[in-house]
Amino acid sequence: MVMAALRASGRVRVVLVDHRAKPDSKLRELERLARAAGVEWRLVERRELDRMSRTGVHNGVIGLAEPLPRLSLKAALDRSDERGDEPFLLVLDEVQYDQNLGAILRTAAAAGVTALVIPTRRGAALNPVVQRVAMGGAETVPVVREGLNSALANLRRRGVRVVGAEADGTIPYWEADLTGPVALLMGGEHRGLGSKVRSRCDTVVSIPLPGGSVVDSLNVSVATGLLVYERLRQQAAEAAEAASSI
Amino acid sequence: MVMAALRASGRVRVVLVDHRAKPDSKLRELERLARAAGVEWRLVERRELDRMSRTGVHNGVIGLAEPLPRLSLKAALDRSDERGDEPFLLVLDEVQYDQNLGAILRTAAAAGVTALVIPTRRGAALNPVVQRVAMGGAETVPVVREGLNSALANLRRRGVRVVGAEADGTIPYWEADLTGPVALLMGGEHRGLGSKVRSRCDTVVSIPLPGGSVVDSLNVSVATGLLVYERLRQQAAEAAEAASSI
Repeated sequence: MVMAALRASGRVRVVLVDHRAKPDSKLRELERLARAAGVEWRLVERRELDRMSRTGVHNGVIGLAEPLPRLSLKAALDRSDERGDEPFLLVLDEVQYDQNLGAILRTAAAAGVTALVIPTRRGAALNPVVQRVAMGGAETVPVVREGLNSALANLRRRGVRVVGAEADGTIPYWEADLTGPVALLMGGEHRGLGSKVRSRCDTVVSIPLPGGSVVDSLNVSVATGLLVYERLRQQAAEAAEAASSI
Repeated sequence: MVMAALRASGRVRVVLVDHRAKPDSKLRELERLARAAGVEWRLVERRELDRMSRTGVHNGVIGLAEPLPRLSLKAALDRSDERGDEPFLLVLDEVQYDQNLGAILRTAAAAGVTALVIPTRRGAALNPVVQRVAMGGAETVPVVREGLNSALANLRRRGVRVVGAEADGTIPYWEADLTGPVALLMGGEHRGLGSKVRSRCDTVVSIPLPGGSVVDSLNVSVATGLLVYERLRQQAAEAAEAASSI
């Protein structure tokens, strides 16, 4: 995660390293990156790392960094317009667990999502555990904090369709068109999407559960991955078709 | 999880409940299920639950149960043959984290996977944390412990294709045929599939990472979900095509 932050942004100020850590290739690469960026490289006692770690897992390295930049939804959409990218957003309503938010950020970064929107009223924060689980994902995907109503209104104004996912959605997600400017709206671990939130979606898709007599939903980070990658699959299929019809 | 175990199997012996817990609809349903199954319902002090919990999260309820039944790979395949099902297995090589194994079990149960194979030499065990994260998934998906070599040989003998997933696989997973008798082979959190293991796959597919300069892989439970559900999508597409061509 420290490596990802060094690679992706200029926000790391100090890297603290266990003075007894074996200098393997990964650690040498980290030191090279830190020195090249003019970041302080400080050898410390392991117990100092233990004391400072907010995640409980530091593996002998802790980076001290400026907070992640805050971006408004409007700014994130403007930036994607400037790059000529099609807006593709994730909106997480009430996702509570650090593990899930972290895994979703990792998926979002891998897939090149425009921004992740976490409504201000609730939901997990971008704490050190989330950032560690995201494996660097927090460095490349802008995370926007904005009220849900305001965010959905802003998205609609910019021509972005809102696709919600729910156990009893109207069609399986793979039958819905997920290409074009789209925001995927995912509910939290405890209740899924509320009926009020559902009514504000353009489409509500379901994730089929053919084996599910006991299990009646998926982990939210798995469910989010399915929808994100179904969009990528559909885009690839479209591109292949366009190429073959020339 | 206790509810799922009561519904799915006869292995629960005692349910311990915080004697001060508010009897909401979920708790009443649990008591009804327990009494109907002749399972002991015991009211206890909360601190007794705190003391007994092996997951740290008991929400006022702990179930004591017989261990999950052990099944051989052969028996799992025989059982699926008897039901006339097509074998569809997951083989997890070196998946280490309880959260990931639990989420994978939950996906496997939702999708109706024949069995989950965890090589004996390594990998997480089916402990109480895994079972809690699986949300009941461990009750319906047989978990087979068998050496990786033996398992792959057994699968091949039964005509099951082995499809591995790796960052630099030969084709995107959505271009591979994942229908028919298939076992998906997923690598662990740290190294993915080793080259030895790769060489034993019939196909090695990749998961595209179009946004991935910093993030170079997905969480293993997310990656597993993608492959499992791509099979379901392909099956649904095949069925729709067969129906429209009649």
